Amino acid sequence: MAQNVIIVGGVALGSKAACRFKRLEPGSRVTIIDQDRFVSYGGCGIPFYVSGDVSDVNDLRKTSFHMLRDEAFFKNCKDIEVLTRTRVERIDRENRQIHILREDGSTDALPYDQLVLGTGSRPRRLPIPGADLPMVHTASNLNDAQAIKELVTNGKVERAVVIGGGFIGLEMAEALADMWEVETSIVEYTRQIMPGFVSSMFARMAQREMEKNGVRFYLGEQVQALEGADSVKTVVTDKRRLDADLVVMAVGVTPNMELARDAGLTIGPTGAIAVDEHLRTSDPAIYAGGDCAEIRNLVTDQPGYFPLGSMANRQGRVIGTNLAGGKALFKGAVGAFAVKTFDAALAGAGLSIESARKAGYDAVSVQAAQLDRAHFYPKKSMLHLELVVDRHSRRILGVQGFGKDGDAVVGRINAVAAILEDHPTIDRLSNVELAYSPPFSSAMDALNALANAAENMLDGRFQPIDAEGFAQKWSQGNGDLMILDCRARQDGEAFAEKYPERWINIPQDELRQRFGEVPRDKDLILLCNTGVRSYEAQLNLRELGVENPVSVQGGIVTLKECGLDL
Amino acid sequence: MAQNVIIVGGVALGSKAACRFKRLEPGSRVTIIDQDRFVSYGGCGIPFYVSGDVSDVNDLRKTSFHMLRDEAFFKNCKDIEVLTRTRVERIDRENRQIHILREDGSTDALPYDQLVLGTGSRPRRLPIPGADLPMVHTASNLNDAQAIKELVTNGKVERAVVIGGGFIGLEMAEALADMWEVETSIVEYTRQIMPGFVSSMFARMAQREMEKNGVRFYLGEQVQALEGADSVKTVVTDKRRLDADLVVMAVGVTPNMELARDAGLTIGPTGAIAVDEHLRTSDPAIYAGGDCAEIRNLVTDQPGYFPLGSMANRQGRVIGTNLAGGKALFKGAVGAFAVKTFDAALAGAGLSIESARKAGYDAVSVQAAQLDRAHFYPKKSMLHLELVVDRHSRRILGVQGFGKDGDAVVGRINAVAAILEDHPTIDRLSNVELAYSPPFSSAMDALNALANAAENMLDGRFQPIDAEGFAQKWSQGNGDLMILDCRARQDGEAFAEKYPERWINIPQDELRQRFGEVPRDKDLILLCNTGVRSYEAQLNLRELGVENPVSVQGGIVTLKECGLDL
Repeated sequence: MAQNVIIVGGVALGSKAACRFKRLEPGSRVTIIDQDRFVSYGGCGIPFYVSGDVSDVNDLRKTSFHMLRDEAFFKNCKDIEVLTRTRVERIDRENRQIHILREDGSTDALPYDQLVLGTGSRPRRLPIPGADLPMVHTASNLNDAQAIKELVTNGKVERAVVIGGGFIGLEMAEALADMWEVETSIVEYTRQIMPGFVSSMFARMAQREMEKNGVRFYLGEQVQALEGADSVKTVVTDKRRLDADLVVMAVGVTPNMELARDAGLTIGPTGAIAVDEHLRTSDPAIYAGGDCAEIRNLVTDQPGYFPLGSMANRQGRVIGTNLAGGKALFKGAVGAFAVKTFDAALAGAGLSIESARKAGYDAVSVQAAQLDRAHFYPKKSMLHLELVVDRHSRRILGVQGFGKDGDAVVGRINAVAAILEDHPTIDRLSNVELAYSPPFSSAMDALNALANAAENMLDGRFQPIDAEGFAQKWSQGNGDLMILDCRARQDGEAFAEKYPERWINIPQDELRQRFGEVPRDKDLILLCNTGVRSYEAQLNLRELGVENPVSVQGGIVTLKECGLDL
Repeated sequence: MAQNVIIVGGVALGSKAACRFKRLEPGSRVTIIDQDRFVSYGGCGIPFYVSGDVSDVNDLRKTSFHMLRDEAFFKNCKDIEVLTRTRVERIDRENRQIHILREDGSTDALPYDQLVLGTGSRPRRLPIPGADLPMVHTASNLNDAQAIKELVTNGKVERAVVIGGGFIGLEMAEALADMWEVETSIVEYTRQIMPGFVSSMFARMAQREMEKNGVRFYLGEQVQALEGADSVKTVVTDKRRLDADLVVMAVGVTPNMELARDAGLTIGPTGAIAVDEHLRTSDPAIYAGGDCAEIRNLVTDQPGYFPLGSMANRQGRVIGTNLAGGKALFKGAVGAFAVKTFDAALAGAGLSIESARKAGYDAVSVQAAQLDRAHFYPKKSMLHLELVVDRHSRRILGVQGFGKDGDAVVGRINAVAAILEDHPTIDRLSNVELAYSPPFSSAMDALNALANAAENMLDGRFQPIDAEGFAQKWSQGNGDLMILDCRARQDGEAFAEKYPERWINIPQDELRQRFGEVPRDKDLILLCNTGVRSYEAQLNLRELGVENPVSVQGGIVTLKECGLDL
């Protein structure tokens, strides 16, 4: 039986749901309503439009075959009606109709059999003085994008301040600093970028990559006011004043759930619309998805909020199927993410060590550094990985990666993301099978090695210290500290000479013979290039009765990548 | 209690098992015995040594921190004794000892508490006349590698023939043709390269990439003899004679299981040593793994043979753990693979359509072509994927990929490889969560879209035709054939003009209005760039009562990549 389906919001979820449903039920009528003038655009492309990677804003509105997804496209290609510049004022669930307000002031009531809410989110704006000044933008829609691009293209921006060190903040900072050589700073309220997504050490790695490319960071600082007359001129934090002719606020988003709430639909604990696994709201005739809805976090099994274009697209298809009487499921998300930081990438899935502990897990993490392909293959990059596990159950709670070869990083994260919803233990990852060939991976891939390191740690064989632990001991200048450098002489000797009081070089293959030289009354830290030989040395020493040393996980390459200057 | 462990074969599995065991039980004694003069080398690197990517053969013997893994390394770093140039003649299971023969002719009997067989495999040699001529090599060990490298470096090879179009054959051909500009041909007995691993169409894609780089292919030809006096000069097939000053035989490997067989250990149906999930042979005191052992194919649940370095390394660790009393499992393999073909890569996991049917499945496959990242992002490549599914259960049996960005291809394959052992259905892949960011992926990733295409096909909405089906109809020149090109005019009109009898261009967005122009009495094939619009058109036509047309899966980009000249 032909239905009348109305979809509120036509950016990602709405247009996908509409198209999928029409393919399944071509005889039904579908109307998309959006308050903006644009629908169906790739909002995640905005930083890349600002950077110049995408030259025309309409490229973000086009299909991969270069057709503009405007009202005519939906009418002709999809037989879907799109009403832009139209607000949905109210849902009348009892009579199954919505009340709309057009730009010209006219109103109407439209009936529906089924309704879809894809109302999205809006960027948060800090409630500080000056937040409404000209030249203060968010990076949320194409109007903002065009405004910012016009400013930078015309050379009107010399100094920009980005507020917020999350995905959008980092991407916008790169866009401004890289292409337009704008002097760009990021101010972040917490003590690290990407808080909640990666450990402070992995955050440091990405931060340093951006610093090398000219971006400045002010971490642990709170923006208190924006000042200026005609337009913003100064960003005032609790610690300093920063000049700026452009401010980008990238401090997260808020789900647009008011329409649903006012209609009496259930709102979940995250503040977004609650839906079941079929993406149905508390009213069975109404679906919701994308940035306005909350879904299950498949790692914690708690309600979660994942405002990402990839969620919206897949959810849109599920809703389209279910509108047509299907039983498609969207179980939730594991929170996979990736962000390019100039020539490197930071990516992850599941929980960071900090977010795992916050969620109540007895979580530990292990870091490893390994080349992303066969060490004898000429093209290769160092891959840094961190695995977060539940100590008792050995369940994998999350994984994060950083490296100079973005696809290699993201590829590893995706292999873990694919299994994370099954609540795998580290054994699964120790033996996860990746396609092996020297140009693409190692016989023992970095992911396998990472899980093996976690096992060795949990079994008490591997007693690691991380870059922050090392840095703390190093800077305390404790006279008991002694670095036992297990690298070959050509690598380690210079350090031993530079720090005669606290650094000795005994290559791991000489350790048995030179055991007598190992200081027994010191706070001993074992170190090598990536952590393989220092782990071996740890076992050698234990065999010889020395139980206390710790081994630097990820080795000196990790210390350096975290910015330690030795 | 300290044990005495002997390991026969020290290339990949043996050295890994030895090292892992020694880390767990440093007080035990471990001896590795190998008949060759080299142990612990990366045999998979041989083609890259021949190509010059790896300049020194010893790089294949070094750790990632540049230490040569020779006898002294194992002694000093690992406290493991290595006996090279020593053959194990016989296993005396009753008395738990092995009989060895040294190069100098002396013999001995060595006792063991536990024994590990890592005897590997040997390259098959075709039983044809001339197979033993000088300049006929395999690519299996460092001695071969050095011999071939010396020949090409000294300019002594103008024409090479590689027999066999599997991994090693392709890699060796690339090595010879690319770096040394040797006129290189591959002769393959079956009608496609990589038989059993990919469909004939994906094989064609990789073949064409190699042809563009100068490699010639003779498929479906049987080599019958090698001719020459002092050294090989001619390769004689059942169809032609090919000049050659170097022949590389890459026709697979045979497990070295004779030692095990003669000791009465169970040999499995694949001809390799049978082991349980702990990698224990039929004698609980003897383990086996790597190229000499068979493991479970986790897709078919049948015994399988996977002679790959990555298997050997992971299995070695499992054996090391179990030697020390652990209960580590190696459940089997899904057969993930990757091969670089010049600037492209071919990869896969699980079964190809042909191998699935051979294994008795009612298998179907669907192909899709999609960009490997956001279509608006400047750096991107076309990614071709094929999904093999069981028609009734909708279980995923395998996936294969081809594309110009190798890491992007391999990354997608790995995400499927990670879940394949769970026997997932296509629903799982429809919603598999990959890290999304425009520089790395699409909001609806190619993997999601691939599973969606499979679903649409199985549900009867998507009626595909593949490149071979298309080529057949096209070349038959049937007067009933009509291509309905759904692309925009600027793309489709020229073809309609070139083939006025059998090609019409009705852009998909004009299809409803121009329905009257659609020929009703023709054998209609719908076509667009990648298959998205032709699928939409298929649904449009069905809505209008036209049920018969098929849609070219993967579109014209797939036809072109398969070599169709339109």
